[in-house]
Amino acid sequence: MNKIKIGNFIIIEKNGIRWEGKIIQILNDLLILKLKSGYNIGIKIDKKTKIEILKEEKISKHKPVSFDIKFDKKKVPISILSAGGTISSSIDYSTGAISASYTASQLIASIPELVNFANIKSKKILEEMSENLTPKHWKKIGREVFEELKESEGIILTHGTDTLSYTSSMLSFMLRNLNKPVVLTFAQKSSDRGSSDASMNLICSTITATKNIAEVVVVGHGTISDDYCLINRGNKVRKMHSSQRNSFRPINCFPIGKVWPDGKVEFLDKYKKKEEVKEDCYLDDKIEEKVAIIKFYPGLDSEIVDFYVDKGYKGIVIEGTGLGHTSKALFPKIKRAIESGIIVVMTTQTIYGRVNPYVYSSAREISKLGVIYLEDLLTETAYTKLMWILGHTQNEKEVRELMLKNLAGEFNKRLQPSQFLY
Amino acid sequence: MNKIKIGNFIIIEKNGIRWEGKIIQILNDLLILKLKSGYNIGIKIDKKTKIEILKEEKISKHKPVSFDIKFDKKKVPISILSAGGTISSSIDYSTGAISASYTASQLIASIPELVNFANIKSKKILEEMSENLTPKHWKKIGREVFEELKESEGIILTHGTDTLSYTSSMLSFMLRNLNKPVVLTFAQKSSDRGSSDASMNLICSTITATKNIAEVVVVGHGTISDDYCLINRGNKVRKMHSSQRNSFRPINCFPIGKVWPDGKVEFLDKYKKKEEVKEDCYLDDKIEEKVAIIKFYPGLDSEIVDFYVDKGYKGIVIEGTGLGHTSKALFPKIKRAIESGIIVVMTTQTIYGRVNPYVYSSAREISKLGVIYLEDLLTETAYTKLMWILGHTQNEKEVRELMLKNLAGEFNKRLQPSQFLY
Repeated sequence: MNKIKIGNFIIIEKNGIRWEGKIIQILNDLLILKLKSGYNIGIKIDKKTKIEILKEEKISKHKPVSFDIKFDKKKVPISILSAGGTISSSIDYSTGAISASYTASQLIASIPELVNFANIKSKKILEEMSENLTPKHWKKIGREVFEELKESEGIILTHGTDTLSYTSSMLSFMLRNLNKPVVLTFAQKSSDRGSSDASMNLICSTITATKNIAEVVVVGHGTISDDYCLINRGNKVRKMHSSQRNSFRPINCFPIGKVWPDGKVEFLDKYKKKEEVKEDCYLDDKIEEKVAIIKFYPGLDSEIVDFYVDKGYKGIVIEGTGLGHTSKALFPKIKRAIESGIIVVMTTQTIYGRVNPYVYSSAREISKLGVIYLEDLLTETAYTKLMWILGHTQNEKEVRELMLKNLAGEFNKRLQPSQFLY
Repeated sequence: MNKIKIGNFIIIEKNGIRWEGKIIQILNDLLILKLKSGYNIGIKIDKKTKIEILKEEKISKHKPVSFDIKFDKKKVPISILSAGGTISSSIDYSTGAISASYTASQLIASIPELVNFANIKSKKILEEMSENLTPKHWKKIGREVFEELKESEGIILTHGTDTLSYTSSMLSFMLRNLNKPVVLTFAQKSSDRGSSDASMNLICSTITATKNIAEVVVVGHGTISDDYCLINRGNKVRKMHSSQRNSFRPINCFPIGKVWPDGKVEFLDKYKKKEEVKEDCYLDDKIEEKVAIIKFYPGLDSEIVDFYVDKGYKGIVIEGTGLGHTSKALFPKIKRAIESGIIVVMTTQTIYGRVNPYVYSSAREISKLGVIYLEDLLTETAYTKLMWILGHTQNEKEVRELMLKNLAGEFNKRLQPSQFLY
């Protein structure tokens, strides 16, 4: 341990397993190694660990080294847009905190493998952890992605995990006639730390961005190991775990596919291909921001509905229980909201499954009041879609028709039992 | 098809599989058969289906026949309390609606197998679909369960699925020194319909209620087949699918065990046993009802916090994003709430995983404001526990200490990756 230092290229052998890579950090008896594949791993050193130094090279701590990228005519142009989040953040050693800091070009510099798959451009468009993003940020992101689509064959948007699926869902509605892949990706561990998931997510996103896909998708770890990433539809995906790297899961569908960091892709379900899009892509970012989500629970103060009615809200998403229920106590409040011209829609807090107003009397009554039951839509998707639809029309009949129309693959007509907890 | 009628006992053979049972309904080419095991199945009849009538018996439509239950000294006394829900509901053929109607004794009559495992008593305590239950109903249920515990070795509470886990969580706090099993069970399809899950859930609940368990648990289908049920801890379980029979899943833990309808039980994790409880069981149903849940989302109107502060609420559960975050816009509102003496706690809308105030600056700031980060607690459990704790003390220091103390197995110190999406 005394001889090795940061920057050394080493071969390390422990318990019969052998790794080759560059030391990027030493924490007591823990070596953080950047493997050739681009992933970082942490290896605990003990008496049995064999280390062979291959070649010495000084690197400035573990800040990524920038390097020239040569244009390769055989590869397609892909743009990486950075909207902040953990994937572009580093530890501030003075405070121990994490904040959004790396630029997209630094990310590329730290993962040289990316250039094996595409000609990479990069741009920082936001520097925010995603819990601070608002509908106004979605508009900015939409504009930036749309502009970049004119020059690239595919877009990668790096984004914080917390509200990523709200953004991906909104983009799926804003980018009309989308004819290229728009890939959102992320990290659950920051890019400069041992065992970050950033490298593999970015490599797999780059591969996905070169494919014949005409949808907004989310690409990230499929398992807790560094084996493959899932490609999920942007409006049918959700962060289901606060910290595991495989936290983004398909909801009420299968993933579109799996992608391995060596370039292999396996498609598992239908998706839109470029040739299916006949008309020009355009950005339609008209949204109505006065939309609220009300999660129902036993004991919910029914006056919460009045709160939004009285503040001039135009739409309410009720996240009901089971097949789309609330207690009877809410019925008069919902009635008043609808009579005030507010569009009220229903999703379920079970996350998985479909709402259905025909099975139980509660839902039949709620449905009679005029609440729109949104089939198998996620609450996140119902919210962003309602904002977007209300940006175009507030006519109840038109809103109902559009809310129930499949605009961007958001509905799945046939749920399968094995899609539950995929 | 012309010869057979409702009430016939038949042997039916299709695609090499053979069933024996009683016809309880005929819907065009679909036969609904009650098997000897007590389960109902639906079999589509085609030209290749062979049917043999064993014996004719007229039954009054498919209303369960009541019968005498004999006391068996070798078996323990178990009480089934009915709180309503689909498990005790039947289809009203005039309107097509489902409403809570069967009594617990009728349930027993329709599932004679129950008496193989215990001496069964029954009582109807409520007749409500669970979306209409309120904290006041939880108190009534708590009292009824506690009274019945004096006479029985175990309690089964049949309950609607929609808010079942709120009730089971609250009961886990109200029943102090619980020294017997209290088993909540349910059905996703009503008891008198083909392929109802009610029979197996009730049989498995009865078996569970005879075991050496001193906890509130939820028992229901583990898979979509009629193979086994899961035994889940009442405050670490959630309805995760709006309609599938295997919708109740353990969150941030493994199930306590599996139970098969033939009587076999396999325990998978630690649970409290009767002999571990040294003091007398008592009911403590003091709760503070002025507690609210706020689900955070991008664009949330931060004045919603003021709404609850101004209405004199005593506690707020914030269902944050990721590791327990909200946007900066909420910070001044949270500060005001806490300065007004309101206890604010944090859970995560990812459902799975733990909140952590130490990783990101947002959570560090929220934590500094005085928000209590509730580790791996479900929002449902945080809500019921906060109500219960605030019913006893409103002293911030005491509330914090009690909220973070493991009172009924609600915390899991070591989350395992394989517990995700179990």
